[in-house]
Amino acid sequence: MIVYSELSLKGKKAKDAAYKLGSLSSQVKNKALEAMAYALVAQEEEILAANALDMEAGRQKGMSKALLDRLMLNKKRIEEMAEGLYALVSLPDPIGEVKRQWRRPNGLEIGQVRVPLGVVGIIYEARPNVTVDAAGLCLKTGNAVILRGGSEAIRSNMAIVKAISKASEEAGIPEGAIQLVEDSSREVAQQMMTMNEYLDVLIPRGGAGLIQAVVKNATVPVIETGVGNCHIYVDADADLEMAEKIIINAKCQRPGVCNAAESLLVHQDVARKFIPHIGKVLTEMNVELRGCPRTLSLFSGIKEATDEDYATEFLDLILAVKIVDSFDEALEHIRKYSTGHSEAIVTRDYSRAREFTRRVDAAAVYVNASTRFTDGFQFGMGAEIGISTQKLHARGPMGLNELTTIKYVCYGDGQIR
Amino acid sequence: MIVYSELSLKGKKAKDAAYKLGSLSSQVKNKALEAMAYALVAQEEEILAANALDMEAGRQKGMSKALLDRLMLNKKRIEEMAEGLYALVSLPDPIGEVKRQWRRPNGLEIGQVRVPLGVVGIIYEARPNVTVDAAGLCLKTGNAVILRGGSEAIRSNMAIVKAISKASEEAGIPEGAIQLVEDSSREVAQQMMTMNEYLDVLIPRGGAGLIQAVVKNATVPVIETGVGNCHIYVDADADLEMAEKIIINAKCQRPGVCNAAESLLVHQDVARKFIPHIGKVLTEMNVELRGCPRTLSLFSGIKEATDEDYATEFLDLILAVKIVDSFDEALEHIRKYSTGHSEAIVTRDYSRAREFTRRVDAAAVYVNASTRFTDGFQFGMGAEIGISTQKLHARGPMGLNELTTIKYVCYGDGQIR
Repeated sequence: MIVYSELSLKGKKAKDAAYKLGSLSSQVKNKALEAMAYALVAQEEEILAANALDMEAGRQKGMSKALLDRLMLNKKRIEEMAEGLYALVSLPDPIGEVKRQWRRPNGLEIGQVRVPLGVVGIIYEARPNVTVDAAGLCLKTGNAVILRGGSEAIRSNMAIVKAISKASEEAGIPEGAIQLVEDSSREVAQQMMTMNEYLDVLIPRGGAGLIQAVVKNATVPVIETGVGNCHIYVDADADLEMAEKIIINAKCQRPGVCNAAESLLVHQDVARKFIPHIGKVLTEMNVELRGCPRTLSLFSGIKEATDEDYATEFLDLILAVKIVDSFDEALEHIRKYSTGHSEAIVTRDYSRAREFTRRVDAAAVYVNASTRFTDGFQFGMGAEIGISTQKLHARGPMGLNELTTIKYVCYGDGQIR
Repeated sequence: MIVYSELSLKGKKAKDAAYKLGSLSSQVKNKALEAMAYALVAQEEEILAANALDMEAGRQKGMSKALLDRLMLNKKRIEEMAEGLYALVSLPDPIGEVKRQWRRPNGLEIGQVRVPLGVVGIIYEARPNVTVDAAGLCLKTGNAVILRGGSEAIRSNMAIVKAISKASEEAGIPEGAIQLVEDSSREVAQQMMTMNEYLDVLIPRGGAGLIQAVVKNATVPVIETGVGNCHIYVDADADLEMAEKIIINAKCQRPGVCNAAESLLVHQDVARKFIPHIGKVLTEMNVELRGCPRTLSLFSGIKEATDEDYATEFLDLILAVKIVDSFDEALEHIRKYSTGHSEAIVTRDYSRAREFTRRVDAAAVYVNASTRFTDGFQFGMGAEIGISTQKLHARGPMGLNELTTIKYVCYGDGQIR
């Protein structure tokens, strides 16, 4: 029963904090962000010591190299986290913006005002930088946050939250605005997902397994962040040099992220010319190609692609390739396998560009650009809490605005119905 | 297993229809709405005959008078449903609107385009007008809809959906755009709530029990519509004549709806003058008052209000009354008991008006106006699918825009990272 009370107490505290946070001025919030950044660097030693213990435990548990790298903190990474907080200071505060205001025939004035969501829950894995990132974004938008990171990073997260929450409180932020769930058992995660009384939204950040578990088990509204099985379609009318650059960028620049390309579709009219060339280039860049039978006939020595390959987010230097008979076949293939993240066409044809943007159902649809741009910073939002692949509330990169909701404020002088 | 296949088939069909609906022109959609309205009236006889069977079955099952009235159709009600569809024709089509478009330093142009949600599920009770209403709103916004009404109205709903879906298809709407779940068992409702593969959103419309069941059991994203425990706070500085008019309107004009007032808070400075007067007026209008001890000392002969009274959405001619010591006590009371629907202050004080709108956390906050305005039509949206009391995606009255999402369309000329 101890686990249950930890979370309920934190929920209640967060709700109280959220009530006060909603009407704090930008000045106070910005000062707090600066103080948090300062505290991170000032308490670097404690944080690194805690992280060393997490790393040691991780090694003993046999965590993979990649996971250990995500968990690892050093001076430079702590400075980067601090810089992330400083960067938030200079962004405009979305809270209080009147998105629209209009007057009704009876004289009632109705304004749509941007307000915080309230209490945001974040469930994530072993990356301690998410702790700082999420705390900063939530504070800037006047939300209280309850953080529940992976057990592997618990010591690091405790040290980080101790530093930033204390600094924020000294700068005038109410107690309870930034809280970490210290019990990292499954039961507590499950309880958090159904804490509708205290949580306004739950954002899972991590691998597909974590996200699906949250979507399945949560009764609190969830923003699903995303799996990206992204396609590049090279049209009959494509500029092939441009197509090559875009494919290389979308596949190779950072293959482990959700906006990297996983499949290449090539119109049959350009396949004979394009496939042997791009096959050679990508192979030289250590990309493993898996192709349809026609692709294999134009570029041999690669594996045949299975249905599963077309459905897989490799997150690796692997690319599934298919030659399509027509534009419509490309659209059908994308429709079948897309996860609704980012999809691109390379073409010089005006009406096909238009049709692609209209008919492809994804968070971001590109004409003649790399899918790698689906990102809060690349979109110019100045910050990002994740990329939503659902359609409710937020779709695509989520910046500060996506951590807000609205309230209608109605000014009258005695209006009745 | 038959139940499962009905729903999956309908889900698949709806998804296919949604794909086509997304790029239909407003002209086609508007023509279909007109044809649907026409068909309702033309097939009035069949619909009324089906409704008579539902009514008969309802009477035999011992349904209450109020429920039977909701279920009942007649010529006039069918005409009203048809008029509702005609009214949608003249509203602007939200689909395709570019909400914002901007250019990044690298020349990439990013547009935020309004698109349909996809497939909308509606779970509702025994009101056949919801069938027409929801079908019309979803069609206008390019969404496919799967309707699951109460078993009491199944014959009426089947007749209605037969008429309007046929009419819409003849006008060029893809088959599967408007579908009714004919099996009204609990299992099917449960399956619908977890049909993430096919449904983009689920909107429950009905009583608190239905809504809570959906919120608890759904894995599909839900828009919670609402319970309204709405307050009117009469400030020390209120125009008491205005307060009287607003209270009467908010309580009596239509007591059974969610934006009606359920509690009255009166500042102690005006209580001695105001309570005896408003008590008399409301009692004469058959409103049952339940008051705090101080209220009772100023207006005797009424019941004492319990804590539960303050927490109850009466949906009836009952009003809980409380005298508060201060503005802050009023805010605290509202914070404790509010369901976040609509809250009003009556005051002449500038800074208290401002503070009330800032500190009260509700979908709609009123200064000097009746809470009864929280309504899509009253807000000028021209339509309404419900009133959201959650914070994600939509808050307050939901019109056409709230049945849409966005997609980022990015135009480049070879941009890579």
